[in-house]
Amino acid sequence: MRDRLLAAEKVKAIAWRDGALHLLDQRALPHQETWLACTDAAAVAQAITSMVVRGAPVIGITAAYGLLLGARQRHAQGGDWLAALEQDFTVLAMARPTAVNLSWALNRMRERLERVKDHVDVLDLLEAEAAAIHESDREANLTMAQLGVDLIRRQQGNLQTVLTHCNTGALATGGFGTALGVIRGAFIEGMIERVYADETRPWLQGSRLTAWELANEGIPVTVNADSAAAHLMKTKGITWVIVGADRITANGDVANKIGTYQLAVTAMHHGVRFMVVAPSSTIDMNLASGEDIPIEERDGRELLEVGGVRVGAEVDAFNPVFDVTPADLIDVIVTEKGVVERPDAAKLAQLMCRKRLH
Amino acid sequence: MRDRLLAAEKVKAIAWRDGALHLLDQRALPHQETWLACTDAAAVAQAITSMVVRGAPVIGITAAYGLLLGARQRHAQGGDWLAALEQDFTVLAMARPTAVNLSWALNRMRERLERVKDHVDVLDLLEAEAAAIHESDREANLTMAQLGVDLIRRQQGNLQTVLTHCNTGALATGGFGTALGVIRGAFIEGMIERVYADETRPWLQGSRLTAWELANEGIPVTVNADSAAAHLMKTKGITWVIVGADRITANGDVANKIGTYQLAVTAMHHGVRFMVVAPSSTIDMNLASGEDIPIEERDGRELLEVGGVRVGAEVDAFNPVFDVTPADLIDVIVTEKGVVERPDAAKLAQLMCRKRLH
Repeated sequence: MRDRLLAAEKVKAIAWRDGALHLLDQRALPHQETWLACTDAAAVAQAITSMVVRGAPVIGITAAYGLLLGARQRHAQGGDWLAALEQDFTVLAMARPTAVNLSWALNRMRERLERVKDHVDVLDLLEAEAAAIHESDREANLTMAQLGVDLIRRQQGNLQTVLTHCNTGALATGGFGTALGVIRGAFIEGMIERVYADETRPWLQGSRLTAWELANEGIPVTVNADSAAAHLMKTKGITWVIVGADRITANGDVANKIGTYQLAVTAMHHGVRFMVVAPSSTIDMNLASGEDIPIEERDGRELLEVGGVRVGAEVDAFNPVFDVTPADLIDVIVTEKGVVERPDAAKLAQLMCRKRLH
Repeated sequence: MRDRLLAAEKVKAIAWRDGALHLLDQRALPHQETWLACTDAAAVAQAITSMVVRGAPVIGITAAYGLLLGARQRHAQGGDWLAALEQDFTVLAMARPTAVNLSWALNRMRERLERVKDHVDVLDLLEAEAAAIHESDREANLTMAQLGVDLIRRQQGNLQTVLTHCNTGALATGGFGTALGVIRGAFIEGMIERVYADETRPWLQGSRLTAWELANEGIPVTVNADSAAAHLMKTKGITWVIVGADRITANGDVANKIGTYQLAVTAMHHGVRFMVVAPSSTIDMNLASGEDIPIEERDGRELLEVGGVRVGAEVDAFNPVFDVTPADLIDVIVTEKGVVERPDAAKLAQLMCRKRLH
């Protein structure tokens, strides 16, 4: 399956070349493929904030390259460049609040920097670290796909009809995806009848990005309104809801795209199994429960406007872009370190004690 | 409360004058107020199908006037005009499948016609019948508002934070609304702190119509993504979900705008009370349960396009525009004939035996 998954890799969200970080502008997809080149940390932070690039794992990778760009620039300017670089750490860390992969990647860059800051090749070593973060996320995708597919096979022998939310594919990761990686793997193994993709308001990551990725690979995909999920579960034989995560706390609570919690409640009501797929870099053992996760609220105009044109009435909108699904609504969390069924604090602690794989 | 509700009436969805039915084009609201004049039944049917006018009660009223237009035209053409009029009955009845108010209103027109077809003033009598259907819906709104407000007052003394879905206001009825009528009444009585309005994909009746109606009257309203409802219930102290209905079957199952079922599941999970407000013309005692209700599926482009421009990927979309909420998820159904708590077949039968109020 590994080789066939790698062979199916087509889309890339980011590319590091010629000393610049190139980002595919996901706001204009699927109808326009525009690449933006960032050459300093502030531009990278702005690209994260404005959702040129989105998806927890790839935000982490992007921030790592952003820090590298900062280091190159500060180093060239001379003086106390390490002190100046703190500004870049800060601006990148604040680019978006909910996905912990961002600070996780910056922490890895900081640890690396601490060890090599006096080294003559410090910039090369930082570049290698960013590349390693990128590559290990890709590897994590492969491992998670295998683990997720094994889980589905173990639970059910028949063809699966799967529902997913937001985009967790090649555009959201360093490889071919977390939840969407499992779905891709299951399709390659002949286990998928159809994928339903929630359109995922307000940014439509489902109808714009997930549907595009899956259709490009010939995986049968149908888009639906987010609010149709319960009706789908009742009438279309959905067997699994498979989603990604932006932050998982020590007790197994999961922050993910707004609507995930509602899906989990709905899946529980219908006896549909609920799988969360995320690399261990998404797990934040410093937070005891989901109540501690900062939930980003974005401008209400993202709901009330389309393409800068007001569609809704002249009122306020409440636009939380994530919500928290409590662990007790989740059947299984799949990470590259292993699988946690019916997650709780003890099982998460055990998982995170395992050998660091990346 | 009645006088203050009537005083607050501002918006009208339809107007019968000068021998034509004038329809406010709800597709262009709130930014453009365009009235379309229909002078024959086919134009009225087309306006219903294309959602110039929408909302179960007002669809019924519109169809009644459409039939009147048909009768005037056929009568003027002479010959066996009653036979020719059957075409208009058919085209109007088929305009949309789910809301039963449409066939209910046509049946009332047919009954009236049967009684007066040989009368010299047959057209005047049909016009009076359409006007009576219109006026009795307005009266039903007033009664339901009072009953709904009494219910809320009985259950809770404190200020309410209410969540509603789609549009059930002046634009959807002959008066000021079903669910939105109850909310308006509760606001007038000082019982509403804030109304959250699901934006209601794909047509955005919530952010375009409900938010507009409420903001015009100074009722505090905030729009949210449909998928944020569970997060709202967990974090914003929602006390009631109040929605309308397109068809209620003999056992108390309720067809309403897609997403209503998901809201009901979510409300049950959070212990939030769930109220359905609909005139008795919405109750279809000929259908035993919600499984028998025809669920309209519309073109997937309504999800994938915005203003005729493709936003989503080049894939198919599943676009059911209604779903069915089983009776056991509903706390109370409010009609102008009375209130049914924890609805079931026996209680619905008892309700419908009461004196016909309209």
